[in-house]
Amino acid sequence: MILEMSEQETEDFLRTQRVGRIGCHVDGRTYVVPVIFAWQDGCAHVYTTEGLKVTMMRANPSVCLEADEYLPSGAWRSAIVQGTYEEQDEDGAARTLSLLMERMPPSPGRARERERRAGDRAPVAFVIRAVDITGRKVER
Amino acid sequence: MILEMSEQETEDFLRTQRVGRIGCHVDGRTYVVPVIFAWQDGCAHVYTTEGLKVTMMRANPSVCLEADEYLPSGAWRSAIVQGTYEEQDEDGAARTLSLLMERMPPSPGRARERERRAGDRAPVAFVIRAVDITGRKVER
Repeated sequence: MILEMSEQETEDFLRTQRVGRIGCHVDGRTYVVPVIFAWQDGCAHVYTTEGLKVTMMRANPSVCLEADEYLPSGAWRSAIVQGTYEEQDEDGAARTLSLLMERMPPSPGRARERERRAGDRAPVAFVIRAVDITGRKVER
Repeated sequence: MILEMSEQETEDFLRTQRVGRIGCHVDGRTYVVPVIFAWQDGCAHVYTTEGLKVTMMRANPSVCLEADEYLPSGAWRSAIVQGTYEEQDEDGAARTLSLLMERMPPSPGRARERERRAGDRAPVAFVIRAVDITGRKVER
């Protein structure tokens, strides 16, 4: 039986998740792309580089964030967040990076990759600020 | 380093995946929702029940399907499919159910759940027919 999760339960679930998918829409095109995020204070915090998703969210900041977890038992949980794209300034970007490193201690390989990626394209930090949060689950 | 995958490699990846996320958009609202799917012949095949995603895709059949896999090594792959929603007739629905059962042999619990869900809401089978397929990966 599919059960609705409360907003609190859904936020607790979002705090345990690392990979989410952002859906955005501009000029008749809907685009869904995975991101690494950290959930805190009603926002998904993301550190990325310039690219299609950032271009689209700047043009239309009304977006959706989704995260889900499927277990071998058949149990699953999913969260759907309707929210708003807000780009961070330099201080906000530094806080975002600290939060992500605290939640996901980087391996040397990841640190190298981050340096290389940052060298290729301009880094961008943003939050998806929740306007509406819903969650569902099946327990086994 | 992030590498582009060829269309063939991306389709091979999609065939290994069970959970995808559909992004759809109607009247200024973008919605991303997880689905269980089977990839075959350039389409994601889905068997579900009436609900918000089906209502939205009937209103605007231009959608996006995303699937991703993150490994503990830090390697990941993701596929993004721009495609079109096509609802199946009764014969198509039976073929979809066979395909899904072939790829994902159901446990007794899952079969019970499917019966219960089908009892609550009308079942709907559909495909997302790919118009454009892109994939990216990081190898470790």
